[in-house]
Amino acid sequence: MFPRIVLFCGGVGGARMANGFAAAMAPQDLQIAVNVGDDFVFCGLNVSPDLDTVMYTLAGLNDTQRGWGFRDETWIASRRTAQLGGPAWFQLGDRDLATHLTRTAQLAEGKSLSAVTASLCSAVGIQHSIVPVSDQPIRTRIRTADTLLDFQDYFVRQKAEPVASQILYSGASEANLVNAVRLALDNTHLQAVIIAPSNPWLSIGPMLAIPELKTTLQRLRARTPVIAISPIIAGQAIKGPAAKLLGELGHEVSAFGVAEYYKGLITHLVIDNGDAHLAERIRGLGMQVHCTDILIPTPAEQTRLAQELLALVSSTATA
Amino acid sequence: MFPRIVLFCGGVGGARMANGFAAAMAPQDLQIAVNVGDDFVFCGLNVSPDLDTVMYTLAGLNDTQRGWGFRDETWIASRRTAQLGGPAWFQLGDRDLATHLTRTAQLAEGKSLSAVTASLCSAVGIQHSIVPVSDQPIRTRIRTADTLLDFQDYFVRQKAEPVASQILYSGASEANLVNAVRLALDNTHLQAVIIAPSNPWLSIGPMLAIPELKTTLQRLRARTPVIAISPIIAGQAIKGPAAKLLGELGHEVSAFGVAEYYKGLITHLVIDNGDAHLAERIRGLGMQVHCTDILIPTPAEQTRLAQELLALVSSTATA
Repeated sequence: MFPRIVLFCGGVGGARMANGFAAAMAPQDLQIAVNVGDDFVFCGLNVSPDLDTVMYTLAGLNDTQRGWGFRDETWIASRRTAQLGGPAWFQLGDRDLATHLTRTAQLAEGKSLSAVTASLCSAVGIQHSIVPVSDQPIRTRIRTADTLLDFQDYFVRQKAEPVASQILYSGASEANLVNAVRLALDNTHLQAVIIAPSNPWLSIGPMLAIPELKTTLQRLRARTPVIAISPIIAGQAIKGPAAKLLGELGHEVSAFGVAEYYKGLITHLVIDNGDAHLAERIRGLGMQVHCTDILIPTPAEQTRLAQELLALVSSTATA
Repeated sequence: MFPRIVLFCGGVGGARMANGFAAAMAPQDLQIAVNVGDDFVFCGLNVSPDLDTVMYTLAGLNDTQRGWGFRDETWIASRRTAQLGGPAWFQLGDRDLATHLTRTAQLAEGKSLSAVTASLCSAVGIQHSIVPVSDQPIRTRIRTADTLLDFQDYFVRQKAEPVASQILYSGASEANLVNAVRLALDNTHLQAVIIAPSNPWLSIGPMLAIPELKTTLQRLRARTPVIAISPIIAGQAIKGPAAKLLGELGHEVSAFGVAEYYKGLITHLVIDNGDAHLAERIRGLGMQVHCTDILIPTPAEQTRLAQELLALVSSTATA
């Protein structure tokens, strides 16, 4: 397998972009690398929310209305857990539970997270390659005025309400890229790296905190397009707490704030047509700007954006 | 709480006897101590099958036909786990899962197994006191000709088919009785210790392997009835592999074999009317014999046997 495109993603925006590329590209041409900073242990189970969201989305099993988990899900175990006084702030559907039970058992047998993910993807009929960005644990933590919160505690239990002062990525500095991603970034068939419209701080940051990835992108961008898609449109996050977080961390709440975050790492930022007025300022940061419609809630829009980005990559190659 | 009766039990036979005593006695008069040798970790979850069987039975939630787990149970998570290639040899119902999720989470928070059990029992409305015999792990293992099997591997995955040459109770020699049981056995209100018609080697053995319990019973029996009920009737186990195991371990497959196992620890063995011909040989082992109908599949029969045993205790006290 010699992927032409490596896509880094996390969260719902990431899964949508991954779905678009998977629809637009043959399995051997695409490597999907997924954030593991949200991973955590809940009731003894190894839960990997970003991997699961990508997996369920590509398998067509995801609930598009709720935005996470299985469609047609049941909640028998979770509801009863609440009745028993057990933790119920993170809802585990009965079908979803099977993913975590399987992952936990296979990790306990000594399998790597990437091997477990490959096995799960195969079981749900996904042909494209989805890997965790690293097989080593990376844990995103949120510093607030008075405490340090685990990611899911912040994001789910406290509904991202606490004011963040700093985002930490425990374990990232000792983590390595999984081999599939390292090889894909190194090989001569690589045409572009895509960074999905995921939350830069929460979904992409944990991956960029892997020293190997950051230096690789810095090196790559001299010869290969590294294209990020803004998760911010008109000062609003497409989904989730990205805009709130940008403000709290002292950044401009706009596609320009996103551009500043990726400065030195990307060659192109894709922004919404409505944000075209920011293009010139963003170009001033040393990157090209591509304006288009980046709101992609439906599979058709996801495929359209992926195809448009692939065309952008082709035009860059021939330019 | 000054219990008059301490009941040691495990397995389905144990849960039936516990149910009978719970129906026949006020909560403050009874202490139920449950085997933990079957406990294991499955897919990351702390499963305590014997505690759960007693708990579900006393709460009236148990499936009496299947003999384990919840009645009206669903199997969504377990079936999907099998589809995903995860371990499915131990079936976890969706409602049952909630018990294990809650237990695992609370143990991870640092609660003891007895505190978790008290909390679960309270949540399902049980007023009688059910405790694990110990808060330290005891793990039953089965030695066969060529390997050493974890209990659930032997009992569930391999359906108790391997030929056992020895039963080991890892951890038992370092385990202590939980305080509730220690206090109940020590206090002057104690009228009798009952050992349920559970598998002596698999359900009672792990408890008797706690040095503190064995020496306490040896001391107690001089002044207090210690009454075991045979799980063997007419050379057959009432349920499970007790008869097969007795033979494999070189014992007589009868209530007499059970009596030999308990020799020096009990004052009375309760055997089935149909085994009355064994009474004289059993008495020769230094214990009294009480013959009655010991098959107790229904709650009414369970209560009847418990009441009969309480009458036996009373008659012993006045004798």
